[in-house]
Amino acid sequence: MSLTDDTHYMSLALQLAERGLYSTHPNPRVGCVVVRDGEVVGQGWHRCAGEPHAEVNALNEAGDRAQGATAYVTLEPCSHHGQTPPCADALIDAGVARVVIAVTDTNPEVAGQGVAGLEQAGIEVVSGILEKPARELNNGFLRRMQGGRPWCRVKMAASLDGRTAMASGESQWITGPQARSDVQRLRARSAAIITGAGTVRADNPSLTVRPEELGDIGHKALPVAEPLRVVLDRNLTTPPDAKVITGSGQAVVVTTEDAIDATKAQLLRDNGAEVITVEPDERGQPHLRAVVDELANRQINEVLVEAGPALAGAALQSGIVDEFWLYQAPTILGSNARPMAALSLDTMAQQHRMAVMDRRIIGGDQRIILQPQH
Amino acid sequence: MSLTDDTHYMSLALQLAERGLYSTHPNPRVGCVVVRDGEVVGQGWHRCAGEPHAEVNALNEAGDRAQGATAYVTLEPCSHHGQTPPCADALIDAGVARVVIAVTDTNPEVAGQGVAGLEQAGIEVVSGILEKPARELNNGFLRRMQGGRPWCRVKMAASLDGRTAMASGESQWITGPQARSDVQRLRARSAAIITGAGTVRADNPSLTVRPEELGDIGHKALPVAEPLRVVLDRNLTTPPDAKVITGSGQAVVVTTEDAIDATKAQLLRDNGAEVITVEPDERGQPHLRAVVDELANRQINEVLVEAGPALAGAALQSGIVDEFWLYQAPTILGSNARPMAALSLDTMAQQHRMAVMDRRIIGGDQRIILQPQH
Repeated sequence: MSLTDDTHYMSLALQLAERGLYSTHPNPRVGCVVVRDGEVVGQGWHRCAGEPHAEVNALNEAGDRAQGATAYVTLEPCSHHGQTPPCADALIDAGVARVVIAVTDTNPEVAGQGVAGLEQAGIEVVSGILEKPARELNNGFLRRMQGGRPWCRVKMAASLDGRTAMASGESQWITGPQARSDVQRLRARSAAIITGAGTVRADNPSLTVRPEELGDIGHKALPVAEPLRVVLDRNLTTPPDAKVITGSGQAVVVTTEDAIDATKAQLLRDNGAEVITVEPDERGQPHLRAVVDELANRQINEVLVEAGPALAGAALQSGIVDEFWLYQAPTILGSNARPMAALSLDTMAQQHRMAVMDRRIIGGDQRIILQPQH
Repeated sequence: MSLTDDTHYMSLALQLAERGLYSTHPNPRVGCVVVRDGEVVGQGWHRCAGEPHAEVNALNEAGDRAQGATAYVTLEPCSHHGQTPPCADALIDAGVARVVIAVTDTNPEVAGQGVAGLEQAGIEVVSGILEKPARELNNGFLRRMQGGRPWCRVKMAASLDGRTAMASGESQWITGPQARSDVQRLRARSAAIITGAGTVRADNPSLTVRPEELGDIGHKALPVAEPLRVVLDRNLTTPPDAKVITGSGQAVVVTTEDAIDATKAQLLRDNGAEVITVEPDERGQPHLRAVVDELANRQINEVLVEAGPALAGAALQSGIVDEFWLYQAPTILGSNARPMAALSLDTMAQQHRMAVMDRRIIGGDQRIILQPQH
């Protein structure tokens, strides 16, 4: 089978994997295609935790036709018993002759063992086909498995002159409806959204996902789980009746060990929020590294920071930011308007240079995805 | 002859016209192609004021072969006696059978008369082929002929967060070398550059054109005329030995009628600058409309504003800005750094929305050309 064929079928498997964009966490998004004699005989994807993995779904569809077939899997098949039996064993039992893998798992319980098990059973294994997009699809899962941290994105909507709101806080709307729908998709793929108490007090956002704005990702959407709302709030000034606290989905208010106020904490807990403490950083605020570590412990793969200039600036300074998503509108809001990130830098040498990963026109705006160069 | 052929030959004529980008002002950039029986028999472009027009150059090359030919001209041929005889007459005398025109002249001495003269002589005339790019090439000339104002561009190099320098003024280099070369081309096509006395005092820029950075525009470049340097300087604080005053090319320092200081003015004049006064605006600064009117009187077609936040903000507020050229680097300079434009706006309703005309990646930066929506 030619490399072109392998790329073609892996591309199909990736499209299947993407169907799980909003529903698989804490598991990875995985797709699988089984091909025999140039015919697709089985397709599967992982829908959500507790349900069968992509390989099993595809093998079930293929049935006996999996004998001697090639299986395309976007992530190295698992070799350990988790909530479901190992997929490597399922591929062996089904009698596939060849397995093509996009990206090797970084889960210490899987890494390389899936491949080894397949090869020991006499199956030909090829790895690295369409590795880059497959890796990007599961950046958060792979990062958490390997580095113990979630993939952290900061999202901003700003003007050409880098302003995110007028001095009064007025900001509706800098970007257009298409860009705002794109943010909905970004929220829906994130298992947690971090914001600051100042934003909650000023804007009282719900930070929920509007499923009707997610568009079509190739299947009848599964119910989208609401992301965990994480409010950084040293002084527990979040109103107990704020939408992030009382709305659907779970909320965690994070204060510091030295500052927690038991009365205020109880009021928030009475309204359904969890209140936790982490160590303070040099500003006295909840230490961002400690916050994301806590989220990794909770099996959060992808975190979205939607915050005002203070938290955005602190996030950029802290080094926790993996991606910066800038939605830029063709407008000028003036020098009194709010800055993008409160960052006090004195020299050009201190600037935060970034690598441009993607530029896209969305409606009348531009979306730029950047990665800080740490 | 098909529309496709007309478009093809007009495209050639436009390429010829572009050769005059840096040298024709105050005249327009014009190209001409003469075609007979599917063969290009003459090509010409206008090099600089005082030299023959494009049509004459192309007809000279064509000689007798212009008889019965089609002439493609990017701008309506002139019908009046200026420094050279009317080109409409030259086309008639040469015996062309058909004239294709991209854009009709807005010069009141020409508008429609060139076409009328040709038609009266029995020549078939077609207008509007590739009109948009032909118009863009001579935006400044056409604007000045019709509206009595030059085409005014504001250029900025800024970070993603809309900052043009650190608080100290340090700004070398926000954008990369390719973007800076592009600015050289923008300067070279501008007949005047406006800056502020603050920028001159802080940075002492020469605002000259470096011909070696202009690249190849398809011909051995003519000597590039240095743009007129215009310094807005109410209090005449421009140092008489500033590079914009003592460098090659002409400098005009603009103060206001009520504020002019005869001693300081004389010092600047002694160093070769011209000092003029215009009426003050509500800030007490030289009125920007009056300044561009004065430049139109001096036959300036295209003006480039290269200035700090104060003048950039005033220019945007004044309504003189036709285009905003933003060179945006993928970096964050922080909230202490200098704003793009000092503009005090209170509500979203006061924002300066712009229409995006062009986006282009230049080296590691993005160039966005926008037009304010007045």
